[in-house]
Amino acid sequence: MNTNGELIGVGVGPGDPELLTVKAVRALQSADVVAHFCKDGNASHARATAAQFFRPGLLELPLPYPLTTETPTADPAYRSTIQEFFDAAADTVAGHLAAGRTVAVLSEGDPLFYGSYMHLHIRLMKRFPTRVIPGVTGMSGCWSAAGLPITQGDDVLTVLPGTLDEAELVRRFRQSDPSVVMKVGRNLSKVRRALIAADRLGDAIYVERGTTPQERFMPLADKDDDSAPYFAIILVAGRWCKP
Amino acid sequence: MNTNGELIGVGVGPGDPELLTVKAVRALQSADVVAHFCKDGNASHARATAAQFFRPGLLELPLPYPLTTETPTADPAYRSTIQEFFDAAADTVAGHLAAGRTVAVLSEGDPLFYGSYMHLHIRLMKRFPTRVIPGVTGMSGCWSAAGLPITQGDDVLTVLPGTLDEAELVRRFRQSDPSVVMKVGRNLSKVRRALIAADRLGDAIYVERGTTPQERFMPLADKDDDSAPYFAIILVAGRWCKP
Repeated sequence: MNTNGELIGVGVGPGDPELLTVKAVRALQSADVVAHFCKDGNASHARATAAQFFRPGLLELPLPYPLTTETPTADPAYRSTIQEFFDAAADTVAGHLAAGRTVAVLSEGDPLFYGSYMHLHIRLMKRFPTRVIPGVTGMSGCWSAAGLPITQGDDVLTVLPGTLDEAELVRRFRQSDPSVVMKVGRNLSKVRRALIAADRLGDAIYVERGTTPQERFMPLADKDDDSAPYFAIILVAGRWCKP
Repeated sequence: MNTNGELIGVGVGPGDPELLTVKAVRALQSADVVAHFCKDGNASHARATAAQFFRPGLLELPLPYPLTTETPTADPAYRSTIQEFFDAAADTVAGHLAAGRTVAVLSEGDPLFYGSYMHLHIRLMKRFPTRVIPGVTGMSGCWSAAGLPITQGDDVLTVLPGTLDEAELVRRFRQSDPSVVMKVGRNLSKVRRALIAADRLGDAIYVERGTTPQERFMPLADKDDDSAPYFAIILVAGRWCKP
């Protein structure tokens, strides 16, 4: 008899607690353990979004990342540290699952779209029952907040991490119609230069903390500094729908 | 005093009624009118997904498309017919808004991501208060159903409509890492040929009716016919995560 608990990746959406799905709320209310990745010393955004749905007595399992600054993912030392961290996190979660406890892992946005949950999923999916509850992505939250129709008809959408190098960003902006830049943060000045080089700055909208009370958005051309939170997003409108 | 009603684009998610957000459910329960696009003679998928949340006595406004077959969007006659249809639909909705009624417009997936809602939004946003409630996209529903991590780290995601011509699809598959093909339907044989030409067939997963009780998914290479519903999706895994 299999008495293992279930591993559930739970997308909590872009930030507004009301943008959790009905299914995500139910999963949180029946989970034995709720795990969330966080930076050491900082509360997890996903936890802040979902906490109002936690039941009393829930066991919380914070999983603090070993590094607090962004490092190039091509760096072998970084890769090794982060792989060891995910191995250890998977072992901890596996202990709860083997004891028969259901573990819900919170993910900002959607779990399998740039989410850390996937690193637990691929390590545990062969040993335990797993289920993924999709969530509203951060980018959907941002284009909805800005009221910008991002794609229609035959549009091709390109989703770009702001961590790409500048020449690659320029090339992508030149050949893309609508696009979205994720993980803007400290990459904002580079992304701005690439948009200017590709002659697309006028199509770009900057959005930070979309769907939360701190939401702000503006044409990127009107933003007069290059400071941005990590989860800020830039939307580049398609040519048929200038902002 | 402004007594106009509010126009709300409501994303109802990929098909499972529990994948509506808490906010979408609240909006439906307080709306005066719920509008939904549909093909003449066919119930709207979005309506089927959301109907369990309608309150008794709600006024429903079906908006049947004038055409039931897919026509190239570059065809001027098609463009003219569809623009007239959206103009007329916006006029009907405007009548309710001007009478002070809140109108929720259902959208499969996310309203501003390939959704028909946007055609009402751009026609009415200057005259009436508007609000968009983002939803879980069909593609998030499909990769979650299949348990496929679609993007991680520095991945670039490309979202391609299956309506693109074959040479363009080949070119895009060759230069993309992970990608998603929307609107597969009658385009399946063409998409399959393009994946073979780009040497990516082995990375492709076919998903139909993701998140519903009729959900089916399989490696595309194992699917032995080319019939597919319109909303079927093909996921092309990134090179780091073969299916």
